[in-house]
Amino acid sequence: MSNNWIETKGNVFMEIEKILVAITFVGSVIALLFAAITAKKVLKFSEGSEVMKKISASIRTGANAFLRRQYSIVLIFFGVMFVILLAMAAEGFLTFFVPFAFITGGFFSGFSGFIGMSIATRANARTANACMEGLNRGLRCAFSAGSVMGFTVVGLGLFDISVWFYLLKFVFRLPIEDVTSAMLTFSMGASSMALFARVGGGIFTKAADVGADLVGKVEAGIPEDDPRNPAVISDNVGDNVGDVAGMGADLYESYVGSVISSSALGVVAFNSIADVDGIRAVAIPMAMAAIGILASIIGSFFVRTGENTDQKTLLKALRKGTNVSALIIAAVSYPLVRFVLGSEYTGVFLSILSGLVAGVLIGLSTEYFTSDTYNPTKRLSESAVTGHATIIINGLGLGMLSTSLPVIIVAVCVLAAYGFAGGFQNATNGLYGIAIAAVGMLSTLGITLATDAYGPVADNAGGIAQMAGLDPDVRRRTDALDSLGNTTAATGKGFAIGSAALTALALIASYVERVKIVGSGSYTLDMSLMNPVVLVGIFIGACLPFVFAAFTMNSVGRAAQSIVVEVRRQFREITGLMEGKSDPDYASCVDLCTKASLREMILPTLITILTPVFVGLTMGCNGVIGMLAGATATGFLLAIFMSNSGGAWDNAKKFIEGGNYGGKGSEAHKAAVVGDTVGDPLKDTAGPSINILIKLLSVVSIVFAGLIVEHHLF
Amino acid sequence: MSNNWIETKGNVFMEIEKILVAITFVGSVIALLFAAITAKKVLKFSEGSEVMKKISASIRTGANAFLRRQYSIVLIFFGVMFVILLAMAAEGFLTFFVPFAFITGGFFSGFSGFIGMSIATRANARTANACMEGLNRGLRCAFSAGSVMGFTVVGLGLFDISVWFYLLKFVFRLPIEDVTSAMLTFSMGASSMALFARVGGGIFTKAADVGADLVGKVEAGIPEDDPRNPAVISDNVGDNVGDVAGMGADLYESYVGSVISSSALGVVAFNSIADVDGIRAVAIPMAMAAIGILASIIGSFFVRTGENTDQKTLLKALRKGTNVSALIIAAVSYPLVRFVLGSEYTGVFLSILSGLVAGVLIGLSTEYFTSDTYNPTKRLSESAVTGHATIIINGLGLGMLSTSLPVIIVAVCVLAAYGFAGGFQNATNGLYGIAIAAVGMLSTLGITLATDAYGPVADNAGGIAQMAGLDPDVRRRTDALDSLGNTTAATGKGFAIGSAALTALALIASYVERVKIVGSGSYTLDMSLMNPVVLVGIFIGACLPFVFAAFTMNSVGRAAQSIVVEVRRQFREITGLMEGKSDPDYASCVDLCTKASLREMILPTLITILTPVFVGLTMGCNGVIGMLAGATATGFLLAIFMSNSGGAWDNAKKFIEGGNYGGKGSEAHKAAVVGDTVGDPLKDTAGPSINILIKLLSVVSIVFAGLIVEHHLF
Repeated sequence: MSNNWIETKGNVFMEIEKILVAITFVGSVIALLFAAITAKKVLKFSEGSEVMKKISASIRTGANAFLRRQYSIVLIFFGVMFVILLAMAAEGFLTFFVPFAFITGGFFSGFSGFIGMSIATRANARTANACMEGLNRGLRCAFSAGSVMGFTVVGLGLFDISVWFYLLKFVFRLPIEDVTSAMLTFSMGASSMALFARVGGGIFTKAADVGADLVGKVEAGIPEDDPRNPAVISDNVGDNVGDVAGMGADLYESYVGSVISSSALGVVAFNSIADVDGIRAVAIPMAMAAIGILASIIGSFFVRTGENTDQKTLLKALRKGTNVSALIIAAVSYPLVRFVLGSEYTGVFLSILSGLVAGVLIGLSTEYFTSDTYNPTKRLSESAVTGHATIIINGLGLGMLSTSLPVIIVAVCVLAAYGFAGGFQNATNGLYGIAIAAVGMLSTLGITLATDAYGPVADNAGGIAQMAGLDPDVRRRTDALDSLGNTTAATGKGFAIGSAALTALALIASYVERVKIVGSGSYTLDMSLMNPVVLVGIFIGACLPFVFAAFTMNSVGRAAQSIVVEVRRQFREITGLMEGKSDPDYASCVDLCTKASLREMILPTLITILTPVFVGLTMGCNGVIGMLAGATATGFLLAIFMSNSGGAWDNAKKFIEGGNYGGKGSEAHKAAVVGDTVGDPLKDTAGPSINILIKLLSVVSIVFAGLIVEHHLF
Repeated sequence: MSNNWIETKGNVFMEIEKILVAITFVGSVIALLFAAITAKKVLKFSEGSEVMKKISASIRTGANAFLRRQYSIVLIFFGVMFVILLAMAAEGFLTFFVPFAFITGGFFSGFSGFIGMSIATRANARTANACMEGLNRGLRCAFSAGSVMGFTVVGLGLFDISVWFYLLKFVFRLPIEDVTSAMLTFSMGASSMALFARVGGGIFTKAADVGADLVGKVEAGIPEDDPRNPAVISDNVGDNVGDVAGMGADLYESYVGSVISSSALGVVAFNSIADVDGIRAVAIPMAMAAIGILASIIGSFFVRTGENTDQKTLLKALRKGTNVSALIIAAVSYPLVRFVLGSEYTGVFLSILSGLVAGVLIGLSTEYFTSDTYNPTKRLSESAVTGHATIIINGLGLGMLSTSLPVIIVAVCVLAAYGFAGGFQNATNGLYGIAIAAVGMLSTLGITLATDAYGPVADNAGGIAQMAGLDPDVRRRTDALDSLGNTTAATGKGFAIGSAALTALALIASYVERVKIVGSGSYTLDMSLMNPVVLVGIFIGACLPFVFAAFTMNSVGRAAQSIVVEVRRQFREITGLMEGKSDPDYASCVDLCTKASLREMILPTLITILTPVFVGLTMGCNGVIGMLAGATATGFLLAIFMSNSGGAWDNAKKFIEGGNYGGKGSEAHKAAVVGDTVGDPLKDTAGPSINILIKLLSVVSIVFAGLIVEHHLF
């Protein structure tokens, strides 16, 4: 009788479950269709003159060549890892689904970046050309290109999730806890790919940028983006491989990671109380993601303005789109939670809301510290007057101080999300709340990524306008777009870091649950801070972001150095180059950057993957948990510090260039340029890579948990 | 019968206990006597010409004026805290001994700094004068002055400890656990005083340094330490109030903190197994400290060389002194442990040894990363060739990378000390092992501090030689001493940071024990990393060193700015100043620095004291423990990063000045000077203050534990 009742109710939920998978799948298809339609719209714009077409083609060629070679290296890595995972599966440490999930995660992450970059490299000349007609038309073209990327990322993410879920649950009929833990491993594939993309692309873009500036602007005295500079194409290629392909892979990984980790925690949290094996808790993040896609599409229709508006109005238009999406999500998630989890658990809705609000607040805090409309960056500009040293010291101080607000926001968000989900009565419910807050934060990703990804397109358009010798008005317009892009990028960065921290916390919790399962009660978890292994783990974990940042910064330095040498050689050896009579050898610079960045991306990635295994083999799972906590906290802080210092230096320079403190060419400006150059690798290479680092550490730990539970020293 | 046996054995130990208190007391008296004799020796040196006497007197006057005003502000703080602690004692949260212990800790910490500074300001002209006779005689004078400071610090530390111990144990006859927990609070007094001294002095010295350089060297083009520069006396005063008085107070606090926290943990560890209330475990750190004093005195006699030796031989002589002391301590501590704890616990000896070895290794790692005889700093110098930006980026990278070795060393040391002391069988024994490792590391403090504190004396001597227009040979000699001092200072810094980390860990453990006592079983400690309050605490704690560093760096910037304005005013308004016909107004610069640094030291100190209370009141003891762990790990890393980046920039500049990459005046040199200036507040203000920060957070938490256990939100 009672059994029967459960069965009936079970069937109802099985139906709901199928419906939800269907919704998720449909959501992903809608996102991809929307991306395709938008891509078509972008391609309808004219590419402009033959010169512009030619420049755009060289950028595209360089970017594609980089990606091809990067993928071929990554392929080797994935091949090796596949074999290792297969061997571990054969030994019984993993299921056989894991190696395949790993591969698909990596594939889709890379593919997201590739699609985003393909459209970006096709939209750059088109944006420059559109800017000839007006600022607004330029924005339309660039923003559409950004939308393609945004919706491709979320579309592919949900596609991967829904297909795997369908296969594992309905074809192989695995129990739900095995489904989610197998799916966690495609997060590892996605993270690995993302790390390669972010680090490799980040080194490429900053090496080219710094190298081009050092010789071109400083030594030869030619303007930025001057076609005589052999590194100028590399610089534009870099924007695409770093800021577009790298970011795409990165956020694909955040998105997928947050959905899956909250699913996994949901299973644990609700398994004991739910009528049907925790499926209800899994449904929430997946449905949230689907809703987020629809909300983002609706929101993107609100990004409209009249033909002749100023920058402030444009920013407002972009904001409106994001806000509308967020409101829709907030409104729809309440009935969703109530329907799926029942009225007892409507607190989960407030957890989702905490994440949404925290994301917005972190973005605002980033803007406060890095925008030249507020005091911190204004005062930073002023300190350029007393020279190089003071602007550097104050910039470092500004970045460090700027960690305080995001920490408080995340602290309150974590406790709120935990408490609302009922964590103080039942701990696993609370951890699910934290994970679902990350999903809430990332649910608007489709549109926030669109507003973020259009920046590099505008940046490229400016370069093309300069190189093709277009009217200065066009360059002014692309600069306006670029500067708008800086603001949205700052918000986007805060958002990426905040969601990374929450997702990492959720992944740590998933790790603990995983250890409980694979240790099947025989492994003693002692996660107390009085366990020296945990403390030592925290120290080691806290050290990782520092070491990782050091590696990537030094890589940029070394790679830029080699560009400097090559550019100097070309200036010296190619006759008629400075007079504009002969062309520089752009390809050799692109080639150098490619080689250098691919060489330099390997060591940091290996360290990230090997450290959790090494810590596990020596200090066991407790040491690993300590390491993850230490890395997450310090990584979060270091990433914020670096990206805000870099952002503030960038805008302080722009503020001076706007005619303050002596304007362009003054001593203050020179000091500000140094600040900006120092900030470049901090904000565009080291900082964003740390986001991925902290998540990759967790997923690697999860995948190797089975091994570690059986083999460890302490 | 059995009772009788325990009583007999108890009496034996009571005797041993008295003997050990006596030994400790005698040790402290010997140290103070040795300091007095050495001081007399220093004062026998001649102060040189009238000009030199005059300069030295102005430095002394400025330094004393600063200290007087600093102490009067600190007095208000101590008065307020005394009343608060008294009120808390009246409410039953503390015993009535606590407020008084707090006061004495602060008094002796400040007094250590004062004595060290008094002798340093009397030794500067004497060292300059001695350098007229030869390098070696100069070293003798400066090193003796350093010894006075070293032995005063350890002497006063042990004096305070032994007197309080005697009073509490033998006069008031408190049980041993109450004795050690009351004594922990004079560590809070010492830490508060140390933080004021380090932050205030650190801001003073770097504001004066940066301000003097910016106008004098850069704008007016006059050499360093030129008497026409109005800020030149401030610069020399700064060396004394920051590097001498600040460091004295700082290391007094480390020393006392490590001895007391290990005593407190020893009581807990051995209370259950020892025959007489844990006194055996308390005896070890106290006796170790006394032995350390004798070993340091013996070691200091080995610091001898022939009259005409080069710098390398001098360094060897200094090293020999330290090594001899370390060997004596290692040799004597084995029978000590065996006799006091019995053969069952000889593992504790290995814990002590772990600390000793780790201290040496961290020093070597610091030297590797910051000395220009090794690759990292050499390569850093090379990067100055490509400009300001590259040397800054690479310097930041170098500092971040340099955190890796110390973390590994501390990790191994912690696990070894824990394991050797039997922690894997009994956790509290292991924590005692970690604490005793810190004592081992600090046992050579008498002599290491002597080799460290002579640096600022030599630096001052150089300034006096320059201002008094002594023979260039004299300046060359003082420069040689100064540069030798940089190397020993680097080692000393690594040592200070390493011991701070271990002591902080011991204090966290003491906090946990304290909560268990005051919570008397009713307070539930859940220190698991899956407790969100602990995780949030870690985030907040990890943020504190960043915010603290930002405050102090910005303070230096602001204070330097006001010096720049004043120096410019004097150059403009005082007629005949640049021609050397009239004197600048040194006092007004000293006054400005004093005011600025005292104003700026208040906020960071208040934050440090209020944050643990605030975190406790909201998130309870578990949140506090998380905060302490986060602050210790991140603070340790940030302190190493900052002091190594700063040290490497300093030495890279010196390396270029030695004639490499174009030498003085080249573009590379200009870039290196900027690097050095950026590094100044990092390595001399923010970095060393963080050491105190992490310990003060712990002791404040301990003192307020009684309050927090009863009042907290979560």
